[in-house]
Amino acid sequence: MQFTSEQRLDDGVLERGFTLGEIPGILWTPASASAPAPLILLGHPGGLHQMYPRLVARARHSAAEGFAAATIELPGGGDRPRSAAADQARADLRRALEAGEPVDGEIVDRLVLPLVDKAVPEWRATLDALLSLPEIGGPVGYEGGVIAIGIRLAVVEPRISAALLFAGSFVPRAMFEEAQQVTIPLQVLLQWDDEGNDRHLALDLFDAFGSKEKTLHANMGGHTGVPQFEGDAGSRFFARHLK
Amino acid sequence: MQFTSEQRLDDGVLERGFTLGEIPGILWTPASASAPAPLILLGHPGGLHQMYPRLVARARHSAAEGFAAATIELPGGGDRPRSAAADQARADLRRALEAGEPVDGEIVDRLVLPLVDKAVPEWRATLDALLSLPEIGGPVGYEGGVIAIGIRLAVVEPRISAALLFAGSFVPRAMFEEAQQVTIPLQVLLQWDDEGNDRHLALDLFDAFGSKEKTLHANMGGHTGVPQFEGDAGSRFFARHLK
Repeated sequence: MQFTSEQRLDDGVLERGFTLGEIPGILWTPASASAPAPLILLGHPGGLHQMYPRLVARARHSAAEGFAAATIELPGGGDRPRSAAADQARADLRRALEAGEPVDGEIVDRLVLPLVDKAVPEWRATLDALLSLPEIGGPVGYEGGVIAIGIRLAVVEPRISAALLFAGSFVPRAMFEEAQQVTIPLQVLLQWDDEGNDRHLALDLFDAFGSKEKTLHANMGGHTGVPQFEGDAGSRFFARHLK
Repeated sequence: MQFTSEQRLDDGVLERGFTLGEIPGILWTPASASAPAPLILLGHPGGLHQMYPRLVARARHSAAEGFAAATIELPGGGDRPRSAAADQARADLRRALEAGEPVDGEIVDRLVLPLVDKAVPEWRATLDALLSLPEIGGPVGYEGGVIAIGIRLAVVEPRISAALLFAGSFVPRAMFEEAQQVTIPLQVLLQWDDEGNDRHLALDLFDAFGSKEKTLHANMGGHTGVPQFEGDAGSRFFARHLK
């Protein structure tokens, strides 16, 4: 991991850009960290540059609670090499949505499963690198969308202790079985009127998770309308499980 | 309203028993209240004596946040005169549940609708009396089970500004229309594996509420298994809306 930039934000949070091989990422650490900080991995749908305002807001929120936060660019996102197959699947998905047709599970599988297969090892390699820094201590939480990536990470990565998942993206049917294998504490955010999200599927997925402690927070509004108070609720969830 | 008893709890909260006509009740006020305190009405399924441990825990939680809390005995609950019709409906309900049969909506109507009709005016009279005390200032929240009572109160009582409802009881179909008329901020608690509660009906009810701000918190476990952290979540909900 190589740091490529460094700046102090106005609230004292240290923001550092890094690369891990070809993968760009950002690490935020709290202003005053006497002990190694627990870490929250911030998942997002790809496109670090466009996502930056929302990511830095989430990172500041985490830093105020004493957590470090980090994110990486998704495979095919931002300036990373695109995949012709993923582009095709995305185009097929867009066509179905614009035509108002139900989205074929086969399209979702083509779009999401290869992404999960590629992204999860990258997240794990990032975790290796981050946990080798003296200022990062663990335990580790995962927070974000692309819920399928969160599910796979929760199953295969024992260093992740809790996850705050955004039920706002398409989930391949095969992931429902993986969801049953998840046992870490979960908080799941659902936007009740999310245009791009099947509410019933999201509730079925919540039901499928194997975790003994799982909480669903459903709020009104569309995909990007998550109320501000859920930021606090997320911090308290991680404070219960990462401290 | 007549006070019938008074004691200081170990955390300084003042607990006073009262009667309003024939209706017994309890009022809890914070240890140190410089200004008139906002008020939370604590709803429960009846039987003040049996419910006391849970009610006093909720009241202490509220008092710690600067809220007064009050509850009254339900019509037919505790030592209050029983209704033969309600007893019959309750027996019919128990029979259906024990036989593992689906509960007929007609039984729910017979049990719940008269209770709502009687209880809501009593709650409103209690509110009149409580708000005339110098130590109680408003705004007012309602928190508790017998969700049908909470719905009716939220519709007819303009002094109630926010409600934290427990989706853990039978709801007459007619209440779904009333739910559409509710516009105050809501937080709805749902126990995912509640034996006595139809999850899909509870989700439909959540969907029906007319409020622009409504949040569903669903947690694992049965009727009485609400996780302790929901106490904090409830306090923060009321802090947002009653302060």
